[in-house]
Amino acid sequence: MAYQIPRGTYDILPGEVEKWQWVEEQMRHACRLFHYEEVRTPMFEQTELYKRGVGETTDIVEKEMYSFSDRGNRQLTLRPEGTAGMVRSFVEHKIYGQPQPTKWYYIGPMFRYERPQAGRSRQFHQFGIEAFGSMDPALDAEVIALGMHLFQSLGLEGVRVELNSVGDAESRARYREKLIQYFEPYKDELSPEAQSRLYKNPLRILDSKDARTKEIASAAPSLFDDLSEDSKMHLDRVKQYLDEMGVHYVINDRLVRGLDYYTQTAFEYMLDLKGAQASTIGGGGRYNGLVKEIGGDDVPGVGFGIGIERVMLALEEQQIQVPNQNRLDGYLITMGEQAKAAGMKVLQSLREAGFQVDRDYLDRKMKAQFKAADRARARYVFILGEEEIAENKIKVKSMATQSQEEVSLSNLLDWLKEKA
Amino acid sequence: MAYQIPRGTYDILPGEVEKWQWVEEQMRHACRLFHYEEVRTPMFEQTELYKRGVGETTDIVEKEMYSFSDRGNRQLTLRPEGTAGMVRSFVEHKIYGQPQPTKWYYIGPMFRYERPQAGRSRQFHQFGIEAFGSMDPALDAEVIALGMHLFQSLGLEGVRVELNSVGDAESRARYREKLIQYFEPYKDELSPEAQSRLYKNPLRILDSKDARTKEIASAAPSLFDDLSEDSKMHLDRVKQYLDEMGVHYVINDRLVRGLDYYTQTAFEYMLDLKGAQASTIGGGGRYNGLVKEIGGDDVPGVGFGIGIERVMLALEEQQIQVPNQNRLDGYLITMGEQAKAAGMKVLQSLREAGFQVDRDYLDRKMKAQFKAADRARARYVFILGEEEIAENKIKVKSMATQSQEEVSLSNLLDWLKEKA
Repeated sequence: MAYQIPRGTYDILPGEVEKWQWVEEQMRHACRLFHYEEVRTPMFEQTELYKRGVGETTDIVEKEMYSFSDRGNRQLTLRPEGTAGMVRSFVEHKIYGQPQPTKWYYIGPMFRYERPQAGRSRQFHQFGIEAFGSMDPALDAEVIALGMHLFQSLGLEGVRVELNSVGDAESRARYREKLIQYFEPYKDELSPEAQSRLYKNPLRILDSKDARTKEIASAAPSLFDDLSEDSKMHLDRVKQYLDEMGVHYVINDRLVRGLDYYTQTAFEYMLDLKGAQASTIGGGGRYNGLVKEIGGDDVPGVGFGIGIERVMLALEEQQIQVPNQNRLDGYLITMGEQAKAAGMKVLQSLREAGFQVDRDYLDRKMKAQFKAADRARARYVFILGEEEIAENKIKVKSMATQSQEEVSLSNLLDWLKEKA
Repeated sequence: MAYQIPRGTYDILPGEVEKWQWVEEQMRHACRLFHYEEVRTPMFEQTELYKRGVGETTDIVEKEMYSFSDRGNRQLTLRPEGTAGMVRSFVEHKIYGQPQPTKWYYIGPMFRYERPQAGRSRQFHQFGIEAFGSMDPALDAEVIALGMHLFQSLGLEGVRVELNSVGDAESRARYREKLIQYFEPYKDELSPEAQSRLYKNPLRILDSKDARTKEIASAAPSLFDDLSEDSKMHLDRVKQYLDEMGVHYVINDRLVRGLDYYTQTAFEYMLDLKGAQASTIGGGGRYNGLVKEIGGDDVPGVGFGIGIERVMLALEEQQIQVPNQNRLDGYLITMGEQAKAAGMKVLQSLREAGFQVDRDYLDRKMKAQFKAADRARARYVFILGEEEIAENKIKVKSMATQSQEEVSLSNLLDWLKEKA
């Protein structure tokens, strides 16, 4: 019986994996330019952390978590998103006691038990940044700009930033009441999900996918009217800095984001993708209350998460060619056992000098070995037989020009260095 | 209440994470040189895969797996090692139908519920390679050489290869019977664990940590005497190729490896570490029966796994300095709101040109901003105040020489390019 990969997950194989490597390199590079440092937290955390940090009434916590007990009966959950773990780490290591801001990033797998579909898998991958310790709207602008810089460096076209303010705790509270008042008369027409959220988290009703709920929500009051002077000023500054930096955006006053913990700035990176339902490829915002919520001091934060699967879909749709470093410098063909043994020494010396070389491991005929060299896109083929061994030479053939010459075995490395 | 990281796991923070990044780059580089390509399998697989692929009587399967049911009641297990998933992927995607050999590698987290101690955590990390589709002993030698190349490129000294053959299925069967015969008279003196293995997998008794069991095992017959001519020839060839490649090794006829699936070549990379109990930092061998066991054709394989935590311990013990790419090219100090906004434009243009630059986000005084520049090891500090804005200039100060000059704002990028 053959085993199958768990439903909703997938393997990333050669041919595809080079794209992931390249995309991740671009992410790391963008972070170096903007001075964000990597943090790696475990693949699982205490279940409580996500209940507190993501929000009890979110889809993630209600329906999508991979939770389990370990053999010591601890309640653990595979991380469904990256921010809660970063905040836990920031608090646990008392990073808030160091000079601020703290600028971190993460890249890695996340886990949500969702219905598998294009661009959405149960193990998916996110790139995210978090900047702690500053209320400066310039930092919000920097965070938004880093994502846009990444998309540009990937060659993606048409990514747009949608921007909103979800206000501070007070304006959110006022708005919350207004929303409840607005939705209450429609209560029976709302989707069951929206109904269950009406008093717990009415902002989330604005996110609803249900047709009738959406229709009702379309006429709901805008948070804009309830923003405090502070929040308006903050948003104005973010806009001003983005203008200075040449980062384009549009204001979308319905944008609330799926997670409970946002305050002030909320934004999404949008790009229409044929294969995927939603056109969001990433998003984020400020979460000034989250660090305190998770047991730390009252330290503000701002960040984003970008779905790597969405990015890969976009790259494919826009037919962006990714550099492939897997091309071989040389492929070694040997004939006979003596040459094979001598060939191992040749291979090793070339590899130690930094050349990418390979050989046949199936004792195939010469023609088949040439084919293998071709498949591996080798620049040169080195041919070593008994005759060559006897004369201390090796044949070298260029796969591009088909020209062939003989080189002294001890000079092969220098010869290749000259050609490189 | 503050949340804690799950017991036995740890965060990798800036200061430490750069070492991980560098070590992983070295691993990827070694794989490029030797023509191994990355494969990424999910963090969990069907529990059955590990029972079959790792072995029902191993410590891993008996005691150490993180197993759970998903919401669809599938039995899943966080991967405790990398090979089973790679083999599952090789079979599921019918890679055996493509030209062989297939040379793959993986880097990533693994999970075992063990007693936490130095160099051993519940989420740990492994680098591994697997080469499928060839019986050629030259491939065994290549696999062993790749690991040694990695250790050399990391600058680690004193790593040694211990090498053995655990024979083919027939010689293992013969040896198994001999071992049972040998151990049976001592049955009551063996550790409970060894007793439970006596008839199921007596080779594993040779691995025992129990003092009396070890003593008894020390006089047990050696597998060497039972090796078939084929197995002896295979081992001789591996030795010959390693000699050609200049890879040193010692033969250790007690080496059997912890997992059930090895055949023929078995080896370990050994390095004495003060902090850790064992001196093995990696190991591997041939597993000619595994692909078939997991439901594929009868395709041979050979590979290794290296514990990254062990490598990190070794780097620390040998005080190996790791290159740090996080040094800033410049740190921007601004005074006043107008300069701050203009500074955002400056930052963005420098970053877009590939420079690593940062700024203050706490509206600190100039002296504090200089301190921040110093902490970030910036090469230059750029100073922008109202005066400079009015004159369309920016002050530039070298942190190394403390020399200062004024540059036209529009020329800053060119100025920096010249200095780089």
